Amino acid sequence: MCQLLGMNCNVPTDICFSFEGFSTRGGKTDDHRDGWGIAFFEGKGCRFFLDAKPSVFSPVAEFVRHYPIHSTHVIAHIRKATQGKVTLENCHPFRRELWGRYWVFAHNGDLPGFDPKDFSFYQPVGNTDSEKAFCLILERFREYFPQKKPPLEKLYSVLKEVSEKLAQKGIFNYLLSDGEHFFAHCSTKLSYIVRQAPFAAAHLIDQDVTVDFSELTSPSDRVAVIATTPLTDNEVWTQILPGELLVFQDGLPHKFP
Amino acid sequence: MCQLLGMNCNVPTDICFSFEGFSTRGGKTDDHRDGWGIAFFEGKGCRFFLDAKPSVFSPVAEFVRHYPIHSTHVIAHIRKATQGKVTLENCHPFRRELWGRYWVFAHNGDLPGFDPKDFSFYQPVGNTDSEKAFCLILERFREYFPQKKPPLEKLYSVLKEVSEKLAQKGIFNYLLSDGEHFFAHCSTKLSYIVRQAPFAAAHLIDQDVTVDFSELTSPSDRVAVIATTPLTDNEVWTQILPGELLVFQDGLPHKFP
Repeated sequence: MCQLLGMNCNVPTDICFSFEGFSTRGGKTDDHRDGWGIAFFEGKGCRFFLDAKPSVFSPVAEFVRHYPIHSTHVIAHIRKATQGKVTLENCHPFRRELWGRYWVFAHNGDLPGFDPKDFSFYQPVGNTDSEKAFCLILERFREYFPQKKPPLEKLYSVLKEVSEKLAQKGIFNYLLSDGEHFFAHCSTKLSYIVRQAPFAAAHLIDQDVTVDFSELTSPSDRVAVIATTPLTDNEVWTQILPGELLVFQDGLPHKFP
Repeated sequence: MCQLLGMNCNVPTDICFSFEGFSTRGGKTDDHRDGWGIAFFEGKGCRFFLDAKPSVFSPVAEFVRHYPIHSTHVIAHIRKATQGKVTLENCHPFRRELWGRYWVFAHNGDLPGFDPKDFSFYQPVGNTDSEKAFCLILERFREYFPQKKPPLEKLYSVLKEVSEKLAQKGIFNYLLSDGEHFFAHCSTKLSYIVRQAPFAAAHLIDQDVTVDFSELTSPSDRVAVIATTPLTDNEVWTQILPGELLVFQDGLPHKFP
């Protein structure tokens, strides 16, 4: 299994604090040692850092922990391999282009026996169930909406249907974004917190680090952080219910009927 | 216009020395200040570093200059914008997936008036002529070979035909790779050097830095470095002829009739 970290905000924000705690779980406070990755959207552009090394030892992760990249949509992942060997092409997040936008996906869980072969447009490069599930989601998107991105409600409805089918095959918690919308699907375990004014101090669970967000923010800022398990021990995180698909926009969660 | 740097080797090699000289041209010894990027293949996996900042000032470039990543197929680019604003999504190299492999592309040149709209598979995310040309190449690949990657000779023949057509629209020097094959197309200016035993010392043009490769290599190593203009002043670089399409494999250039 793996762990997920996501961030969605109304103004570009750095994820250094959350990534500091999260990446500690990649070999120190937890055993997700089989690679890691993080994707930052900057407008339609997308920046990626991946490494098959454990995140606690990876020089690339060390760089990301200390270099503040400001983004409104971030997806990160630390891997504990269940399917697919420990290699760069099996590190999440994965990325493909659809409708002239980059789509980024990371998965926590395991889909035993899910091994489709009949990809028509997007083919997996590695050999994880996760990348195959991502390809399948984008194939469905293309089938339903071949020309361009539909209104959010329509996209949500197709994604919900595909997600429910895939979740029947195992554990399927995931984060998915194109830099405009940010989807979070809970199959078994996923939590989030929305930080907004009045901001307070937050203390990491995995390291003895505290940040006082009131010193770093403007009153109108709003930041949602989504993670497999809470990253801080002095804030109240909300558990997403199993089967729920949330869409974050400007740091707030939404769902559709 | 922009500048290209590529590397193809028979064993995974780091590009720190060449990138040190090359990235100096991104704002210091030359004025390619509008972003930069580098892609490293590691097997089928692919690692990417991009930044819209000039490569001489970019902390990400600073990291790449000093962290040796070993790869057999590397493509790098420093940008001087002719089309498309200075933004992350317009930084080369670009990447898409085809036949279950990542394809990476970087372009030096300008294709004025080239503005196709009818993409069916791959759509540009940014607004450069370069990314559009890349999408068009992959579209042709898919049209000719919808199922899987064909033998090299067949792929080369289609790529040569598309490249000739695109080169008629302007200047079209490019590097293209899927981590297995490494294509270099010269429309006006592109050079390469093959380093192999007996290895000697090389001295950069853009900085007073010398590396003695005989101390760092094994006798069977072979490394081809491809660049818009030579990076060293004490070695003989070979100019690729305008209109030529070379395929590098294991550090050696090939072409087909």
